[in-house]
Amino acid sequence: MPKVTIVMFSGDLDKALSAFVIATGAAAMGWDVTIVFTFWGINIVRDEKKKAIRRKDFTSKMFELIMPKGANKLRLSKMNMLGLGKAMMKKRMAAKNVQSLRQFIKDAKELGVKFLVCGLPMEIMGLQKEEFIDEVDGICTVSEYLREAKGAELNLFI
Amino acid sequence: MPKVTIVMFSGDLDKALSAFVIATGAAAMGWDVTIVFTFWGINIVRDEKKKAIRRKDFTSKMFELIMPKGANKLRLSKMNMLGLGKAMMKKRMAAKNVQSLRQFIKDAKELGVKFLVCGLPMEIMGLQKEEFIDEVDGICTVSEYLREAKGAELNLFI
Amino acid sequence: MPKVTIVMFSGDLDKALSAFVIATGAAAMGWDVTIVFTFWGINIVRDEKKKAIRRKDFTSKMFELIMPKGANKLRLSKMNMLGLGKAMMKKRMAAKNVQSLRQFIKDAKELGVKFLVCGLPMEIMGLQKEEFIDEVDGICTVSEYLREAKGAELNLFI
Repeated sequence: MPKVTIVMFSGDLDKALSAFVIATGAAAMGWDVTIVFTFWGINIVRDEKKKAIRRKDFTSKMFELIMPKGANKLRLSKMNMLGLGKAMMKKRMAAKNVQSLRQFIKDAKELGVKFLVCGLPMEIMGLQKEEFIDEVDGICTVSEYLREAKGAELNLFI
Repeated sequence: MPKVTIVMFSGDLDKALSAFVIATGAAAMGWDVTIVFTFWGINIVRDEKKKAIRRKDFTSKMFELIMPKGANKLRLSKMNMLGLGKAMMKKRMAAKNVQSLRQFIKDAKELGVKFLVCGLPMEIMGLQKEEFIDEVDGICTVSEYLREAKGAELNLFI
Repeated sequence: MPKVTIVMFSGDLDKALSAFVIATGAAAMGWDVTIVFTFWGINIVRDEKKKAIRRKDFTSKMFELIMPKGANKLRLSKMNMLGLGKAMMKKRMAAKNVQSLRQFIKDAKELGVKFLVCGLPMEIMGLQKEEFIDEVDGICTVSEYLREAKGAELNLFI
């Protein structure tokens, strides 16, 4: 089966949607898909309902304060306009029967997409794996990512 | 012949220029190049001279209002500075005999680059294919993109 | 040996760190890695200690004024917050024993990563190769990049 890897670096709603359209599209064709969440992209898989881990240090508390928590809190990369652009995007998606990012994440998981979170930025941002949505399969290192990418037909950095 | 696919997600002038330098460079070497315009990148292939389609709903009208229409209206991703950065960039490009993005688009077409627009974001943004420049070859789905990418030596997301 | 190419388009600190984690990770596994610095990414390899070349024209002077000079001057792509986000990121990186971008650059070079700068944007921005850090191996054209990418297992645009 062809293989796809996506490094999900960005935590913007529009880029996340684009990544999940590709990921679920490929998985629906029976392809083997892995998404590696890193840096701001890790916010996509933070669980908004899970109790926040108690932050021990000031910097972790600050990151907590400023980073969007989970798929529903993401902003657009452009023309977010204090939420108006995002609201427009969401309205149109509903009108055109396009599911929400949260639904895309569920669909991706059902189709067998693998969700990995990069360990290094996770540590830098003071996040712990107990805070992630259940769809996350595990934590990975850069060598694990490279081994996945080596055998893949399609590798994207989004 | 080697094959290249570029997902043109961004509608920023600098990123579009970078994509077209790669696309025309590869096409000039005889490679088979496909650019898939999606999300903000679709603005690159909107025709500024074509009459706007009458928007039926409020959200489409709003998108129309805020999105740059065509290659000449794009902004820089960084240091646009209300147009000063863009003006500087354009001035230097002219001084160094680098053609404009509009000219890059024409050259790419002459060299056989294929232009596809993603159907899903097009619908979300309320755009119709009658509004695009003549260089656009057609609308595509994610599976068509994936099939193109599968056989390609170089796949980029820009 | 597997081969990796990274087009380093962005000049943001977070994206540069991500690129160098991948580049040094791959090089440490014995892979053959090339980074092509283009557009804002060229700022990463400007040497802050080297004397600035005397700019002849107004536009080059303006670019000089607004562009960050070297790895220590870069900003975050998101949540830079006038430097607070960047300071937080740097503090956490030090606390977690993650080296600075400048150190990543040195490590990459020692591991044999090749550093190329794109000639065209360099000219547009009025930069000259005497202004770059010693790690830079040379200037390249788009065809040289394409030839590198053709034989590579992993090609990213960051």
